[in-house]
Amino acid sequence: MSDSPSSWPDLATLRDRIDDIDRQLQVLINQRAECAQQVAQSKMAAEGDDTHFYRPEREAQVLRQIMERNQGPLSSEEIARLFREIMSSCLALERPIKVAYLGPEGTFTQQAALKHFGHGAISVPMTAIDEVFREVEAGAVDYGVVPVENSTEGVISHTLDSFMDSSLQICGEVVLRIHQHLMVGENSRPDKISTIYSHASSLAQCRKWLDAHYPHAERVAMPSNAEAARKVKGEWHSAAIAGDMAAELYGLTRLAEKIEDTPDNSTRFLIIGRQEVPPSGDDKTSLMVSMRNQPGALFEVLDPFHRHGVDMTRIESRPSHTGVWNYVFFIDFKGHTASSNVQQVLQDIGEKAADLKILGAYPRGVL
Amino acid sequence: MSDSPSSWPDLATLRDRIDDIDRQLQVLINQRAECAQQVAQSKMAAEGDDTHFYRPEREAQVLRQIMERNQGPLSSEEIARLFREIMSSCLALERPIKVAYLGPEGTFTQQAALKHFGHGAISVPMTAIDEVFREVEAGAVDYGVVPVENSTEGVISHTLDSFMDSSLQICGEVVLRIHQHLMVGENSRPDKISTIYSHASSLAQCRKWLDAHYPHAERVAMPSNAEAARKVKGEWHSAAIAGDMAAELYGLTRLAEKIEDTPDNSTRFLIIGRQEVPPSGDDKTSLMVSMRNQPGALFEVLDPFHRHGVDMTRIESRPSHTGVWNYVFFIDFKGHTASSNVQQVLQDIGEKAADLKILGAYPRGVL
Repeated sequence: MSDSPSSWPDLATLRDRIDDIDRQLQVLINQRAECAQQVAQSKMAAEGDDTHFYRPEREAQVLRQIMERNQGPLSSEEIARLFREIMSSCLALERPIKVAYLGPEGTFTQQAALKHFGHGAISVPMTAIDEVFREVEAGAVDYGVVPVENSTEGVISHTLDSFMDSSLQICGEVVLRIHQHLMVGENSRPDKISTIYSHASSLAQCRKWLDAHYPHAERVAMPSNAEAARKVKGEWHSAAIAGDMAAELYGLTRLAEKIEDTPDNSTRFLIIGRQEVPPSGDDKTSLMVSMRNQPGALFEVLDPFHRHGVDMTRIESRPSHTGVWNYVFFIDFKGHTASSNVQQVLQDIGEKAADLKILGAYPRGVL
Repeated sequence: MSDSPSSWPDLATLRDRIDDIDRQLQVLINQRAECAQQVAQSKMAAEGDDTHFYRPEREAQVLRQIMERNQGPLSSEEIARLFREIMSSCLALERPIKVAYLGPEGTFTQQAALKHFGHGAISVPMTAIDEVFREVEAGAVDYGVVPVENSTEGVISHTLDSFMDSSLQICGEVVLRIHQHLMVGENSRPDKISTIYSHASSLAQCRKWLDAHYPHAERVAMPSNAEAARKVKGEWHSAAIAGDMAAELYGLTRLAEKIEDTPDNSTRFLIIGRQEVPPSGDDKTSLMVSMRNQPGALFEVLDPFHRHGVDMTRIESRPSHTGVWNYVFFIDFKGHTASSNVQQVLQDIGEKAADLKILGAYPRGVL
């Protein structure tokens, strides 16, 4: 009889306990807000008009500590999300952060902006990536959020190109992970799947997997993955490709998980601003390096990383805007420009490169 | 010298204090989550499969208490928003609430859904209002969110009509207030405004005010109010109509505030579900009443409210679906069906009406 109602604390007792916790939470949250106000006043007194109320490195440190010491029952991600909102509200008390993002509203970029800055920030959609850059440069907003790596939509180049003509700094990154699953309704016959529904970009993301596993199934593009999931719910001969949320929402069964062709199917966004960010203890740095088109150019860029034990995470080459230098490399690596081995790398590359521009050193994405 | 850096606690001290508060907050939030888990288990033991984990009346009471006792510095709205998120996370621990809303993503209806259920809920866009109803009826989602009153977009009728053929209950309401201001850039000549920019629907919302105050200014429709605000920033002979956020974002000056023609320019949304909600202490009830087309029909509907001291907040008449009854009235009033004077009203109307359907008694919108 361990499940009988009497073996649990009664509802009234539990609700009293929750009310008591809520009272304490409310006092503490407001105390935190007071401290944040004092921090702001203290900074303004010391720094004057140039005060940056938002400190990306400090926020990253706070969130990492919270996630490390978390004992549940809330997950580390969930508790970090709540603290992001609390910090966002405290910060907005002094002055709401203004953020421009690549719109329209409802896109992943808006999701990334809100994930990073919380709902206390004022966010405004822009119609193009270079508009986001211009708004930040003009000081109309404090920060911008732009996608930089996306396996399907190919927006990388616009963002990278915008850096060529900009003095803005990268202040942070946000990664949204997107997994795709093949799912069917409860009455389906998995061996008889003749039609697969999904959004066109999801079908594209899973093309190779589909070619290998369902070469003869018709692929039908739907307005969204959620629509696809809903459609197959009652059909026995069709399947949908969609994310975790849709499977859960429509009670579908997953025939295969993580079927996207690129193993790490995620979109990465950059936070751009006008401030340099001090080390947070777990940072990344992004560089833009221009090289003459001559034999060994690529090696000369890569070798210093190897020699000084700095871990490169990404390299992209882009045609130069000026036409004088044939290659522009965009390089991300782990570490901060304040550390000595990174400074050695930068010095070595600087001696060989036609131009070296540090796009920013910033905390690695926390969530 | 009261503004000198030395008169403020130094940054390190303040940050230690914040870290200490954060530790306490984290413990308390997780304790709250544990209590919520126990509430859920206690309810499941008592109610079995029919358990409703989400109690709209309890949540409304908690939020009202928090707002009433709030002493700042965070505003009551902001602290309530944070508690909504904390409650949403605690609830999601047991089982995330699934919510269908009138899409697409990024609309006010999504904003209303997230405002009401917090970001711990799973929300899915539907393409039409009756689809939202069907998803809730089928049990695919727990709740639906649909707009019911909107001064410009005229969606009321679809929602009201959907209730005619539905057994769903109204479980709550959300009101989003939207104020419009006339704003100009810093170098403008307010006496020389020749062009006014805004989104078409905002221009429509302020038509009468514009006719009276700027009869000769050209009205130009823009893709969004934010675009309009941005455009006028550098122009001396033009003004924009936009909301608070745009004025703040672009540093514009407000020439006139709240210029919308309807004094309470807000959009109201209903939360629809399958459960009846007990009284929260500050509730509303919505009715659908069918009357024969005969002299005095309207009076017979209205009179009982007056006699029993019940405060009607809205009445709409709609053509009936069946064709047998000529009028269908949708009526909102303050109070809950559990109170005696409301029961008297219902009895009186019931005696005169061809049909009387209670659409729901639910907590008045808290935020």
